[in-house]
Amino acid sequence: MAVYTEVTDEDLALFLSAYDLGSVLSLKGIAEGVENTNYLLRTQTGTFILTLYEKRVNEADLPFFLRLMEHLASRGLVCPQPVKARDGQALGRIAGRPAVLVTFLEGMSVRRPSSAHCEMVGAALAHLHAAGSDFPMRRDNTLSVHGWSALFAGGRDRANEIAPGLSTLIEQELAVLGEFWPQDLPQGIIHADLFPDNVFFLGGQLSGLIDFYFACTDAFAYDAAICLNAWCFEPDASFNVTKGRAFLAGYARVRPLSDAEIAAFPVLARGAALRFLLTRLVDWLNVPPGAMVRPKDPMEYVKKLRFHQRVTSARDYGWLA
Amino acid sequence: MAVYTEVTDEDLALFLSAYDLGSVLSLKGIAEGVENTNYLLRTQTGTFILTLYEKRVNEADLPFFLRLMEHLASRGLVCPQPVKARDGQALGRIAGRPAVLVTFLEGMSVRRPSSAHCEMVGAALAHLHAAGSDFPMRRDNTLSVHGWSALFAGGRDRANEIAPGLSTLIEQELAVLGEFWPQDLPQGIIHADLFPDNVFFLGGQLSGLIDFYFACTDAFAYDAAICLNAWCFEPDASFNVTKGRAFLAGYARVRPLSDAEIAAFPVLARGAALRFLLTRLVDWLNVPPGAMVRPKDPMEYVKKLRFHQRVTSARDYGWLA
Repeated sequence: MAVYTEVTDEDLALFLSAYDLGSVLSLKGIAEGVENTNYLLRTQTGTFILTLYEKRVNEADLPFFLRLMEHLASRGLVCPQPVKARDGQALGRIAGRPAVLVTFLEGMSVRRPSSAHCEMVGAALAHLHAAGSDFPMRRDNTLSVHGWSALFAGGRDRANEIAPGLSTLIEQELAVLGEFWPQDLPQGIIHADLFPDNVFFLGGQLSGLIDFYFACTDAFAYDAAICLNAWCFEPDASFNVTKGRAFLAGYARVRPLSDAEIAAFPVLARGAALRFLLTRLVDWLNVPPGAMVRPKDPMEYVKKLRFHQRVTSARDYGWLA
Repeated sequence: MAVYTEVTDEDLALFLSAYDLGSVLSLKGIAEGVENTNYLLRTQTGTFILTLYEKRVNEADLPFFLRLMEHLASRGLVCPQPVKARDGQALGRIAGRPAVLVTFLEGMSVRRPSSAHCEMVGAALAHLHAAGSDFPMRRDNTLSVHGWSALFAGGRDRANEIAPGLSTLIEQELAVLGEFWPQDLPQGIIHADLFPDNVFFLGGQLSGLIDFYFACTDAFAYDAAICLNAWCFEPDASFNVTKGRAFLAGYARVRPLSDAEIAAFPVLARGAALRFLLTRLVDWLNVPPGAMVRPKDPMEYVKKLRFHQRVTSARDYGWLA
C-alpha cells in the first residue's frame, strides 16, 4: 500500500532502454501491494505495472512467479503478463531493486463482496488450480503449518499486548493444528492470497486475478479455505453462510472437491485463519518508525478463528453435497 | 504522497452516477500530492484524476482553485481541467470528502532538472502570471510574510531539536524580513508551489503544470523566488548559477522583470526559503503516529536560506541585465 522506492525519470529511462515500448507518457506510484512498490506506467505502446521487489520478496523466487503468470495465462486465466526486454528477459533492475514490467489489467476490486462475487471467485480459484496442474515448477509454502511456530516466535512475548490470552489461544491452536493437519490432500499450484484486493471485476463479471507473490505448492482445499476466510465473513466477523455456499458451489462447479477435502475443511479453515492472524500479529508488533503502511488488524482473524473452532463439518460453511 | 481516504467501488459508483463518463475500468490510489488523496481513474471515456480534499484544504477555497484552472487553460496554459457533472457542478463529495475529477495530464516530472528545464519552467511561470492577469477572483496568501510568525509558533519551542540555534536563526530572519519585505511589487495570480513535482515534461519539452492548491494572489517575483529555490540548487544545497541564469532569462523572455522586482529578489528569495523551512519544520515536528507520509527535511531550506543571506544582488542568482 505504499511506494517504498522512488523511481526517477532517469532511473526509468535507463530501465526502459532495454525494452521496445516507445517513449514514456507518465509514471504514477500506486497504492497497491503491501510487499512491493508499484508504479502505473503509460508509454506510447500501452499501459503497464512496474513492480519493484522489496526486501520481503526472495529474489530466487521471482522466476517461479513470472513463469507461473505466463503459464496460467496460456491456460486461459486472466492475470498480468510479464513484459520482456529485447534480450528476452522479464526480470530487470531499477533503482537497485529487482523489477518487472507486467501488463495492466482493467478492473475494480470490490469492498463488500456479494454472494454472486463469492460464486465467481470460487470458480476462478478452481480454474486457477486446474490451470496450474501441468506447471513444471514447485515452490514450498513457507507460510503453512510447518512455518507457523517460527512465525509465532516473532510475536509470542507481546501477543497479549493485543488481547489478553491471545498468546495461549495461539499456542493451543498450534498444537491442535500440528496434530490434525491433513496430509495427502490433492496438491498443486495455489494462489495463497486471493483476497478481494486481488480480484478484479468489470461490468459485474470477474475480469482477472493479480498478485501472485505468495503463490506456492500446497493443498488446493487450503487455498479455498483462505478464500472462505477472506470473502465470506461480514465486517463484524460474522460468517455469511449464503456467501460460503456460493463460494463452495462456484469452486465445485469447476473442480469437484473430494470427500477427504470436504472432511478436512474445518481444520483447513482454522489453519488459514491462524496463518493470517500470525502474519498480522507480527506486522502489528513490528511497525517500523516512519512506516508507510498501516498494519491490518490481527483481531479480525482472532474472531474468524474462534468461529472455525466451533465448526463441526463443512456443512456449517454452506457445503450442501 | 499517500492515500488518506479509501474510495470503495460503491463510493465510486455513487459519485460517478452524477457524471456521463461511461462505466469504470479501473481506479488506483496514487502517491501524488501531499495534502490530498488522489486516484487515477479510467472509464470508458477517458482517464482522470479523482482528488479528495483532506482537512488541510479549506473547502471555501475550492471554487477559486477550480475556476483558476479553467481560466488558465482558456489562456493557453496546459493544466488539469475540472470535469463537470450533469448538473454543471465540478465540486462533488465522495467518502465524506469534497472531491473533484480533473482531466489527466500526460508527462513526467524531472528529478534532477537541467538548465534547459529551468529555462522552460521560468517561461511557463511567466506565462502563468500573464494568463492569470484577467482572472476575476483573488485569494490572499496565508503563507506569506504576515503568516510566518504564527506558523513559527507551531515549532518555536522544538526547532532546536532539529539543529542547535535554528530557533534563533528563524527569529532573526523573521525580524529582517518583516522590516525589509518589499511592498508595491506587481501582483496577481501566483502558483506558489511550482516545485519539480508539479511540472511535467514530454519529449524534452514542458508539457503541463499541476497542483494549483496553493495558488493565491501575491507578488509575481515572489513566485519566481520560490521556483529559484526549488529548481536551481543542487542536491548538496549549492546554488547552480547557470540554472539560475536560465530560469531568470526564461521568465524575463515572457514577462519582463521591473527594476523594483530585480532589486527585491534577494529578499524575496530569503522569504521563499523561510516559508518552506517553516512549513517543513512544523510538519517534521508534528508527524502523527501511523503517518503515511515521510516529512521533507527542513534542513534543506536552512542551507538555502544561509546562501541567500550572503547574496547582495540578483546578479548573484545569474541575473545579467
